[in-house]
Amino acid sequence: MTDGHIAQADGLDGLETPCLLLDADRLQANVAGMRARLDRLGVSLRPHLKTAKSLDVARVAMASPSGPATVSTLREAEHFAEGGIRDLIYAVGIAPQKLDRVGAIRRRWGTDLAIVLDSVEQAEAVTAWSRRNGDTLPVLIEVDADGHRSGVKPKDAERLVAIGGMLADGACLRGVLLHAGDSYGLTDPAALTRAAEDERRAAVTAATILREAGLPCPVVSVGSTPTARYAENLDGVTEVRAGVFMIGDLFQAGVGSCGIGDIALTVLATVIGHQRDKGWIITDAGWMALSRDRGTARQRVDQGYGLVCDRAGRSYPDLIVRDANQEHGIVGLRAGSSAAVPDLPVGARLRILPNHACATGAQHDRYHVLSGGRHTGEAWPRINGW
Amino acid sequence: MTDGHIAQADGLDGLETPCLLLDADRLQANVAGMRARLDRLGVSLRPHLKTAKSLDVARVAMASPSGPATVSTLREAEHFAEGGIRDLIYAVGIAPQKLDRVGAIRRRWGTDLAIVLDSVEQAEAVTAWSRRNGDTLPVLIEVDADGHRSGVKPKDAERLVAIGGMLADGACLRGVLLHAGDSYGLTDPAALTRAAEDERRAAVTAATILREAGLPCPVVSVGSTPTARYAENLDGVTEVRAGVFMIGDLFQAGVGSCGIGDIALTVLATVIGHQRDKGWIITDAGWMALSRDRGTARQRVDQGYGLVCDRAGRSYPDLIVRDANQEHGIVGLRAGSSAAVPDLPVGARLRILPNHACATGAQHDRYHVLSGGRHTGEAWPRINGW
Repeated sequence: MTDGHIAQADGLDGLETPCLLLDADRLQANVAGMRARLDRLGVSLRPHLKTAKSLDVARVAMASPSGPATVSTLREAEHFAEGGIRDLIYAVGIAPQKLDRVGAIRRRWGTDLAIVLDSVEQAEAVTAWSRRNGDTLPVLIEVDADGHRSGVKPKDAERLVAIGGMLADGACLRGVLLHAGDSYGLTDPAALTRAAEDERRAAVTAATILREAGLPCPVVSVGSTPTARYAENLDGVTEVRAGVFMIGDLFQAGVGSCGIGDIALTVLATVIGHQRDKGWIITDAGWMALSRDRGTARQRVDQGYGLVCDRAGRSYPDLIVRDANQEHGIVGLRAGSSAAVPDLPVGARLRILPNHACATGAQHDRYHVLSGGRHTGEAWPRINGW
Repeated sequence: MTDGHIAQADGLDGLETPCLLLDADRLQANVAGMRARLDRLGVSLRPHLKTAKSLDVARVAMASPSGPATVSTLREAEHFAEGGIRDLIYAVGIAPQKLDRVGAIRRRWGTDLAIVLDSVEQAEAVTAWSRRNGDTLPVLIEVDADGHRSGVKPKDAERLVAIGGMLADGACLRGVLLHAGDSYGLTDPAALTRAAEDERRAAVTAATILREAGLPCPVVSVGSTPTARYAENLDGVTEVRAGVFMIGDLFQAGVGSCGIGDIALTVLATVIGHQRDKGWIITDAGWMALSRDRGTARQRVDQGYGLVCDRAGRSYPDLIVRDANQEHGIVGLRAGSSAAVPDLPVGARLRILPNHACATGAQHDRYHVLSGGRHTGEAWPRINGW
């Protein structure tokens, strides 16, 4: 009952809530597990930094302090280049207006920043830019693994070769890049293994078409956390980009990419009130702290806006954030549960496991680091924006 | 077809995308409209700054540069106190751990920062803090207008008087505060007017109980954008807190609190690709730029992740952001539409009307200001965090 009022040995009392806690032990274990998997499969890891957006986390995840890594914005590219990373892919289709900024990053930090595209018109703009600026931009052609969003169809030889041929005229074709995003909708291990195999086969098909046309394709890059977790064979693939695996979240636990006990991120919250007749505990972690992500609503277990744990990170049975306003979280039992609502006074601290680490992280500007179950006193900054 | 490649007179070419555009003309009109409404109803406006989180916007919305205004975090309170605002309510139930920070804001800037609570245990902590620190904290008792989240039931005289009595012992009871959050689920004008009347009646009931017990209750504060828009009588109310009305969004348009043509906020995006066989346009504004908010999914018209406009802000028929990944927006027609997908090359610019101004704004650190349909060159900073 005195939780939050008497100083605890976990070091959390001094933190203002809501805030992000990152369990560095789990982070390291998640990275070690993925690295061991990919070592067995004979491919390298190019971690995607879009989830963590932190140089400290990147250094845990990368093979070396200089990379390689993947980014989702040019702001990330600038931040990580400034932090010493020299090998990056900006894995979102390039707009011509962004090429000057790409060139500036390459020039200023000497970072080998590669870009991605999937059309002849983009290839034309990139090639013209490369010639005009005397900087041979390295390019990966995005290939559509599964109809999820962008990319050339893997068997569309005409378009692949047209793009590759155009790039040869001043830019540099480095390879193909795929993202099996539809794997996020799966949960059956056999289906996930098939999705990984489909991604691999699409990648190899496109790479083979380019090579048979006499074009270079040294890099064959695939990646999503579910397919990285379930792939059994990556022959012909050279690298895997995955990001959320480092941290994990309830959505990935619902897919089967991690266990709930692997999730390294929680939001620390404080109890600010009750509606006892309804079994509600009101906290200061609303959707602004948790994000608006409700991805688990479409999964077998709907976790509301997050699963509620005590300050040691142990989840309470059936206790979720049932609803959220901007700065209010409404904590209660999931529908149909007969578990007990814990008796927590105003001022008590809770920790919320997030639905989606990328979205929840983005609501915050730092991670407060835990190790051995205690706050180390360190805060790792994280960036946002473009 | 050359949109995005030849400089346009709207001044948008120089902006990096994705970014936020704020139409200052619409902002001013929205504020003038609400102010005129509340003037007619004889109550003052205490704008909620949680949507805009910008001092420049606050100065348009407030009656004077020193306030009054409402905030949802102590970070906002610090920012706005630093910017000269001297009359604030922090409208989220107080946790005892936050009182030192409240006191520091009051001391450092001389801002009359009031707090909110709904329990005797909080009142006890606040009163003890006030006595210990020689600072008589002004307090509003939160009253539950409609079962939405926090607050004492309006007729719970025992609890209201117990809280008020406890506060008299060192703190200062300033009044009652309500938020008719359930009004967000309504769309019928008559039901919205009834919700506003219910909110008013609950406020007056609680204030009367306090006054009849010999306790002070000078402030009777209500507020939500829908009830502020539909109230016909605010007798007994002294002030209205509303925030999203300044900017508007598709969700509020779905409720009927504003028209789509009143929405002052758009996200500027750039076309980065196509899946022409599916009628998809891929942009660089994914959920990171738009937010994960899908509030319109529960309304009559589901706007996806936002309604798509041309760079002049004219909406295309039936064109929405159908799906979003972190940094990819998938633009296409709403289901069942037979409208034409506009032919927009890579590099073309679009503007997306947001589902929820509070959530979309929070993904960004500044507003690029439009007036007379052109970018003025000004950027108004906005804050996030706690």
